[in-house]
This record gives sequence, structure tokens and C-alpha cells, in this order.
Amino acid sequence: MPPSGLALADSRALPAFLLCSTLLVIKMYVVAVITGQVRLRKKAFANPEDALRHGGLQFCRSNPDVERCLRAHRNDMETIYPFLFLGLVYCFLGPSPAAAWGHFLPFLLGRLLHTVAYLGQLRAPVRSLAYTVAQLPCASMALQILWEAARHL
Amino acid sequence: MPPSGLALADSRALPAFLLCSTLLVIKMYVVAVITGQVRLRKKAFANPEDALRHGGLQFCRSNPDVERCLRAHRNDMETIYPFLFLGLVYCFLGPSPAAAWGHFLPFLLGRLLHTVAYLGQLRAPVRSLAYTVAQLPCASMALQILWEAARHL
Amino acid sequence: MPPSGLALADSRALPAFLLCSTLLVIKMYVVAVITGQVRLRKKAFANPEDALRHGGLQFCRSNPDVERCLRAHRNDMETIYPFLFLGLVYCFLGPSPAAAWGHFLPFLLGRLLHTVAYLGQLRAPVRSLAYTVAQLPCASMALQILWEAARHL
Repeated sequence: MPPSGLALADSRALPAFLLCSTLLVIKMYVVAVITGQVRLRKKAFANPEDALRHGGLQFCRSNPDVERCLRAHRNDMETIYPFLFLGLVYCFLGPSPAAAWGHFLPFLLGRLLHTVAYLGQLRAPVRSLAYTVAQLPCASMALQILWEAARHL
Repeated sequence: MPPSGLALADSRALPAFLLCSTLLVIKMYVVAVITGQVRLRKKAFANPEDALRHGGLQFCRSNPDVERCLRAHRNDMETIYPFLFLGLVYCFLGPSPAAAWGHFLPFLLGRLLHTVAYLGQLRAPVRSLAYTVAQLPCASMALQILWEAARHL
Repeated sequence: MPPSGLALADSRALPAFLLCSTLLVIKMYVVAVITGQVRLRKKAFANPEDALRHGGLQFCRSNPDVERCLRAHRNDMETIYPFLFLGLVYCFLGPSPAAAWGHFLPFLLGRLLHTVAYLGQLRAPVRSLAYTVAQLPCASMALQILWEAARHL
């Protein structure tokens, strides 16, 4: 029997978590690719060696659209990375599939909307609301993990 | 038997790790909330759409207190995220409870002090010392993981 | 039997992954230490309290070499942290040792070259190529995880 079956059978919530979390990692990779495309289109590079390759040192400069992409990516790092940890641990607390989806789906949808709102410059407070919707299940999972950890100390 | 019991029983160090790591993730969430509060109080927003909602485009500007919060948060990402990984793996190397706490507690206290020193602008080198105290157990865990991994190659 | 043997025996790919991932975490710590050294050498500090300790408030200033280190470190956070997650999950999909090394080694070498190219200011597009080489196995692992997760939903 391959380790695959074993690991994925350990928790009924794990496949749902791996689906949502990996989709969000791919989403982050897409933001990185978009940042690179915006740098090329706006001719705004962070490093002299990149600017030299694309027309000259004058293109080593900042650009509001590039900085927007960087802020979106940074916010992902502040929120999606903790989710990768909390969600994985939460799966092994034995949640019901409904409870698991009730945590993972708002996070997935909230973070997708957050990126759309950030890169698309949607009117405030769309982005902040998406951020909050995604943070609520994270706070819930964190508290449940704390509770279980304290019980087993 | 729920997966919960199974997973938490796999390692006697795991509850201690989950307690410290989850507290630090929550601490990072608190820094994010503080950043938002400082942005509102100082009226300094990173995005035009946020500034428009809070009084006008002139409030799309940087602010030293906001940047301080961002640096504190970034330093957390540079140190706490690797700890989430190293600490979890380390738990499965079978450390004694005393050794485990000897790694997790200095990290927890060091990172709490780091945030207090950063946001409270404590005199140098308090923040740097807190950083170093927290990095030592991480270096120790990293070396032990390398050693175990090399032995099993 | 210690948990160590158990956990490391769960997957034949795990020791290879732990070796590569932990080496890269240590590499990130080295970038942080280099950043601190460059700050001291260039007398360019991010915080007034640090500048005061090292000669005066005039040294609370930015510096291109420091910013280069910060960009290298940030790019590590954008790429190595997802690898810690994807690689760990991938190990439990039961890859052959050859397939596992075929993913981990390009990532390890790509990210080492990326740092050398960034800090050493190597001519473009060395750094971008190293980045791309490292991202390919991550994309491959992400797709394999998605596939397995979807099959077990």
C-alpha cells in the first residue's frame, strides 16, 4: 500500500484542505507571474542588472502598479502561509467534513476575492471584507488547536 | 478513535510545539490588526481606494509608525514561518519533553519580546537580543534535522 | 521505537526533502545575517533606535545594498516557504526516490544560484533563470497534490 493512501486516509478533511491550500499556493505563483509581466509592461525594474537588459538604467525605478502587486503578494504571505500550517494541523483534530469545508471554503473564496479586489483596484471596503472573511476561519482553527494542545500538555 | 488523539499522541513534544507555534501565529495576526489601527489613526493608507474611503487621496501616503509595524510583521515572517516548519519536523525526531521545551520556550519568549521591543521602540539592542535568543533554538533544530535526514538518506 | 524512525520511515522521499528544505532554511538565515552585516558596514539602519546606537540618527537611512538583500530574502519567502509545504505533502504521495530527487534537487540548486545571482549582482537573466528552474518542480508538485486531493474528495 503506497504512503499516499495512508496519509490521505488519516483524515477525512485532508483532501479538502490540500485542494484549497494548493489552489491558493498556485494563486500566489500567478500573482508573482503577473508582477513580472507588469514590470515588463511598465518598464519598472527593482535591479539595475534587470533594467540594463530591458533598455537602460533609467528603468530601474518604482511603479505604483508594480507596488500594488507586491502588496497583494505580501498580504498573501501574511495570511495564506499561516493557513497552510493551521489547516494542516486542524485536519488532524478530526473535524467533520462539514466543519472542515466550513473553514476551508470561506478562506479559499475570501483570498481569491482579496486578490481580485487588490489587483483590480475594487472599491473599498471590498478588499478588507474579503480579508476579514478569510481570517475568521483561521482564528477559529487557531483557537481549536490551542485548546487541543493545552488539553494534551 | 479520532485522528486527533492519534496525531497528538505521535509525539510527546507536539502539544508543546502546537501551543507555542499557534500562540505566535495569533501574535502575528495581532500585529496585522495593530497595523490597520495605526493606518486609521495616522490616516496613512497604501492604496488610493482606501484613502478615498477615509477622507481623500492625500491620505495615500507612508508613515513611520505604519512602516515600523510592517517591519515587525516582516521580521515575524522571516523567523516564525521557518519555526512552524522546523518545530513540527523536530517533534517527530523524538526529543524529550525537557529538550523540546528548551527549544520552544526561548523561541516563544524571544519573539514576544521582539514584537514588544519593535512596536514599543525599546532601546537597542533589546530587539536584536530577542531576535538572537529566538534564532538559537531554530539553528539547533535545523542542525538536528539535517543530521537525522543525512543518516536516513 | 522512537517516533523519529516511524516518521522518517513513512516515506522514502522524506529524508531527501528534509535535507534540501532545511539547507534552504539555513540559507535564508544566512541571508538575514548578511543583511545585518551590510547594514553595519554601510551604516544604514531601518530604525532610529538602531541608528542612535551606531553613530546617530543620520544613519537611519536606506541603502541600495541593504535593499538588495531584503529583496533576495523576500523572494526566498515567496518561493521557499511554499516549497516547505508542497514538498512535505508530496513526500506522502509516495514518489519514487528518483522522482523525489528530480523535484528537490533542481529546487535546491535553483534557489542557491538565485541567492548567489542576487547578492552577487550577476548579469540578467541568470537570476530569473534560476528562479524559473526552481519554480518548475514546485508547479509539478502542486499539480500532483491537486490531482491526488481531487481523487480523494
